[in-house]
Amino acid sequence: MPSNIQIQLDKRPVGEARLSDFKLVVSDTPPLQDGQVLVHHHYLSLDPYMRGRMNDAKSYAVPQALGQTMGGGTVGEVIESRNANYAVGSQVLGMGGWQQYSVVDGNQPGALRKVDTRQVPLSAYLGAVGMPGVTAWYGLVKIIEPKPGQTMVVSAATGAVGSAFAALSKARGCRTVGLAGGPDKCRYGLEELGFDACVDYKQHSSAASLGKALSAQCPDGIDGYFENVGGQVLDAALPLMNAFGRIAVCGMIAGYDGAPLPLAAPALILISRLRLQGFIVSEHREVWPAALEELGRLVAAGQLRPRESVAQGIEAAPEAFLGLLKGRNFGKQLVKLV
Amino acid sequence: MPSNIQIQLDKRPVGEARLSDFKLVVSDTPPLQDGQVLVHHHYLSLDPYMRGRMNDAKSYAVPQALGQTMGGGTVGEVIESRNANYAVGSQVLGMGGWQQYSVVDGNQPGALRKVDTRQVPLSAYLGAVGMPGVTAWYGLVKIIEPKPGQTMVVSAATGAVGSAFAALSKARGCRTVGLAGGPDKCRYGLEELGFDACVDYKQHSSAASLGKALSAQCPDGIDGYFENVGGQVLDAALPLMNAFGRIAVCGMIAGYDGAPLPLAAPALILISRLRLQGFIVSEHREVWPAALEELGRLVAAGQLRPRESVAQGIEAAPEAFLGLLKGRNFGKQLVKLV
Repeated sequence: MPSNIQIQLDKRPVGEARLSDFKLVVSDTPPLQDGQVLVHHHYLSLDPYMRGRMNDAKSYAVPQALGQTMGGGTVGEVIESRNANYAVGSQVLGMGGWQQYSVVDGNQPGALRKVDTRQVPLSAYLGAVGMPGVTAWYGLVKIIEPKPGQTMVVSAATGAVGSAFAALSKARGCRTVGLAGGPDKCRYGLEELGFDACVDYKQHSSAASLGKALSAQCPDGIDGYFENVGGQVLDAALPLMNAFGRIAVCGMIAGYDGAPLPLAAPALILISRLRLQGFIVSEHREVWPAALEELGRLVAAGQLRPRESVAQGIEAAPEAFLGLLKGRNFGKQLVKLV
Repeated sequence: MPSNIQIQLDKRPVGEARLSDFKLVVSDTPPLQDGQVLVHHHYLSLDPYMRGRMNDAKSYAVPQALGQTMGGGTVGEVIESRNANYAVGSQVLGMGGWQQYSVVDGNQPGALRKVDTRQVPLSAYLGAVGMPGVTAWYGLVKIIEPKPGQTMVVSAATGAVGSAFAALSKARGCRTVGLAGGPDKCRYGLEELGFDACVDYKQHSSAASLGKALSAQCPDGIDGYFENVGGQVLDAALPLMNAFGRIAVCGMIAGYDGAPLPLAAPALILISRLRLQGFIVSEHREVWPAALEELGRLVAAGQLRPRESVAQGIEAAPEAFLGLLKGRNFGKQLVKLV
């Protein structure tokens, strides 16, 4: 049985999360029982939603338990098996958490999924062809319902969700504008991700100033807005929404540390007859097959080439996660465990 | 030709609207041309949306022109006719405006509609069986999509829209809770309009206090919220929304005077996966026949007996309108012109 390094939640953050909220623990992996497999994780996914789960507050997910391994998506390889459906050597996607190995009951529905790495790299199943990609797909296709020629805007544009959003939106014939932090991310958004324009929100200290810059890139207004951030960015975009515009509310990362983030002008919801809808992609399993099919096709065809920020080794996970919350990552944040 | 007293918009309000923003003008009604009819208005409808039109700002309606008669819904009787479809004596609904008489081209689609007053009183076509009733119907049926046993809440509960909302919501088997200002309105809501509970928002000076009182009347949370008010009332209701709750945004009356009214906790849209949708009922003409049919049936059966606040004489319209904006009316605000 290999020895397994795990990262547990040690304390609930007060305000901003810190390294001291996490604890590194080493344990042995238990022997397999019938139906179980031992998975060696190759990559761990770090995602903004994890910050919400660290609080013990009303939220859509049950809170992360204290003294338990942090939850999270993983891809890896089956290295021992007592389940006929998963041969040793199978490549699998699961929720293995912040650790090097996991023991999984292969018979539990949804616990593991075999993935095909002939055309899609293994790590992409945690990003473009995984939960973040399907998140972009659901918000765009099911909430925003874009029409060719309309203008779509996404915040956190060069992240895992934003990257997929760009490819999906362009594939539907929409003008696609991103909001990202810093000139490097904006250039990458234009040159690699296919955005028609990218606005650097770090150049603006007020919603009014950001709104003016965004408006210049959206001469026909905004028909669909995919919100990953909230706060000032949402205040900048709301007045630019066209009548009957749709806003998919996927993230409010700026508010996770507990600071109240009001919306300045909710009357615009009425004035512009907008539809705002919050969603959690894990509650819409029915769309995953169609979404993953399209996303896999875009990746295989080279139309979606998302960048990855890769931290090395499980010990690096907490610091990489805190960097993600500050926007220090560039593309999908992963931890490589092999 | 009868002499016709009109109320025109004389100045755009700066902040709160005042009597001096209006001007009374007397003119002769012009002689009829072919296809036209002369309507003697019996009732004029006063509605909160008119305040928005008095501003020259981005809004869903074109601004009310200065120096022109204020627009508004009217019911009355044809007293002269050069149109074979409208005999003298016909009772008609139209957009006659703030004046005693109007000359209307009866051939213009939608300009006039004959109404049947055998089971529904004439004035009800401006309220329960008119635009306000259809407004309640659209928000409830098309946006909130209630299910039997769910909890519905409406603000401005004893007004024209709220009254209709109560009857429509109860007819669908929902627990129906109102927010109204003052003990008289709350008692009326319970005794006459069929609300299961009514919360007096004037008893509360903070969203937290109002939310606590509302929560006590919504033991299973809120599934559908119909917003006529905005501001503190919306801040009180939002945290009580159940997962997948729907909010129909019909009015933000508290914000019409230009004071910014932020929404305190928009992150709840994500946390509770809410859908908020603003709408203007005049943009959804396709639902009017079905809605008016149900509303007419409820009025004829005595299940919807909305109260009216009736001001006497066209000269009283401006003051009655300013009172409506302050919530001084009790039920549907009308001006009787005969």
